[in-house]
Amino acid sequence: MNFSIMSGCHEALRGYPVVVRVPVIWGDLDAFNHVNNTVHLRWCETARVEYLMRVGLWPAFPLAGIGPIIANLSCDYRRPIHFPDTVHIGARVTRIGNTSFQMEHTIVSEALNAVAAEADSTIVVLDYQAKRPVPVPPEVRKAIAGLEGREF
Amino acid sequence: MNFSIMSGCHEALRGYPVVVRVPVIWGDLDAFNHVNNTVHLRWCETARVEYLMRVGLWPAFPLAGIGPIIANLSCDYRRPIHFPDTVHIGARVTRIGNTSFQMEHTIVSEALNAVAAEADSTIVVLDYQAKRPVPVPPEVRKAIAGLEGREF
Amino acid sequence: MNFSIMSGCHEALRGYPVVVRVPVIWGDLDAFNHVNNTVHLRWCETARVEYLMRVGLWPAFPLAGIGPIIANLSCDYRRPIHFPDTVHIGARVTRIGNTSFQMEHTIVSEALNAVAAEADSTIVVLDYQAKRPVPVPPEVRKAIAGLEGREF
Amino acid sequence: MNFSIMSGCHEALRGYPVVVRVPVIWGDLDAFNHVNNTVHLRWCETARVEYLMRVGLWPAFPLAGIGPIIANLSCDYRRPIHFPDTVHIGARVTRIGNTSFQMEHTIVSEALNAVAAEADSTIVVLDYQAKRPVPVPPEVRKAIAGLEGREF
Repeated sequence: MNFSIMSGCHEALRGYPVVVRVPVIWGDLDAFNHVNNTVHLRWCETARVEYLMRVGLWPAFPLAGIGPIIANLSCDYRRPIHFPDTVHIGARVTRIGNTSFQMEHTIVSEALNAVAAEADSTIVVLDYQAKRPVPVPPEVRKAIAGLEGREF
Repeated sequence: MNFSIMSGCHEALRGYPVVVRVPVIWGDLDAFNHVNNTVHLRWCETARVEYLMRVGLWPAFPLAGIGPIIANLSCDYRRPIHFPDTVHIGARVTRIGNTSFQMEHTIVSEALNAVAAEADSTIVVLDYQAKRPVPVPPEVRKAIAGLEGREF
Repeated sequence: MNFSIMSGCHEALRGYPVVVRVPVIWGDLDAFNHVNNTVHLRWCETARVEYLMRVGLWPAFPLAGIGPIIANLSCDYRRPIHFPDTVHIGARVTRIGNTSFQMEHTIVSEALNAVAAEADSTIVVLDYQAKRPVPVPPEVRKAIAGLEGREF
Repeated sequence: MNFSIMSGCHEALRGYPVVVRVPVIWGDLDAFNHVNNTVHLRWCETARVEYLMRVGLWPAFPLAGIGPIIANLSCDYRRPIHFPDTVHIGARVTRIGNTSFQMEHTIVSEALNAVAAEADSTIVVLDYQAKRPVPVPPEVRKAIAGLEGREF
């Protein structure tokens, strides 16, 4: 485990089974002297990878078999983030479809003690060889249900 | 002018008043050996800055007066992008509200000769000192209308 | 304090007055599936900023007065770094000249329990207005000597 | 060919057999409102990849056989680069050893019409399976000599 995992550190992260903690690095800042808006999505990506590793949906490299591909991302920016700071990024699955699922993220800033951004993504399960979507495997559904503590 | 400006190079970019052209750099790739999904948003950012400069809504640095802040971003990923390639990124305003406006982007890959991604964003006009939204200035509305060739 | 500060966690970091701890994020990987070599320099940058803040040589933004500018960087790569991992980056001053000083970095990987890279940099003290080097201020020299526990 | 290849566009690039041209993107800027120093090294990386592709030393992915790995990088920063601008990055081999070679880079800014940075790197030829250096293959030496127009 390389990320400190916390639960309930901030109420906005309550209910998130995966929360990763990342310090802002200075180079995350842009010319506005706050964290560039694309960095939030790199943080979410790391939380997503951590989540997918835990439910057995992270591929080996070189890529083989099936694995995730991102189809859509969206992010609402609430508050600018400065340096130094540390952010906590939650990841949870909110819906499982046939060949895809929705993942939700909340980013909390320690310095602000507040939600800095919220993001959503749609992740498709792909057969990397055939380059086409395949159904979410039953064992992945089960692992997600186990992590989230509820049925889908 | 540092970006080659084209209009209509690919039909998906027809109607875009601002199109910037950026080569994929090798470091844009991630472990999947395709361009990381956050890079698309850095490209859109550059097209957005180019657009905002042209309509007089780009601030001087150090920041003063009023200027843009991004409130929301969303991106649909259609096709993975590889190296080497060059992408064309269109930027256009689709709606002007009171204190904000919507900007739309299409990313076309030269190698694929196809749309690789589409993005939307909400940009708020902020008074940097007061840290609060202000109405889109009339001269900016007029400049946008001039660039888009239509009234809003 | 946003970075965990450790001393002596790995013998290669012994003697470093500033050590910052940063998790590898997934997007740090490139197509070789290891951390891209430019990321090491972003990590060093953060350790450098932390160091400069402590010795009173970090400017306010918007930039005013005097502050650091990097004149030279060099890095020796010893071992590739993978995800997940956490790295510890040490920063220390090894020499103070008239208008510049040398900073040295060691990057230790927790997963490897070994030195992954070593870097050197030359930092010049600049008058941002005049855009010209100025002598390292006596109070900065003193703060560096205090932090390093020796005279220069 | 995705990069415009020029020769002699600026006298500092004379003699460079590979020159790539990349626009500064807005996100390359850091809080100092100039291009962050790690971006220069990403540019050099792209020039290096272009060079290595031309001399047949760029691997297929997933990695197999032999290919390059970077052992050392160093960069001298001469002038800050701003946005918008376009840079030209030269790559040339200056020395070939047994299992490694030296590559040199010059970065010229169009806006400044001047050298902005110079970099050096040591590239080792690695057997990716065995994870150990192997001699620079004769056909690669020959291709480098052909590109550089001189014997090594």
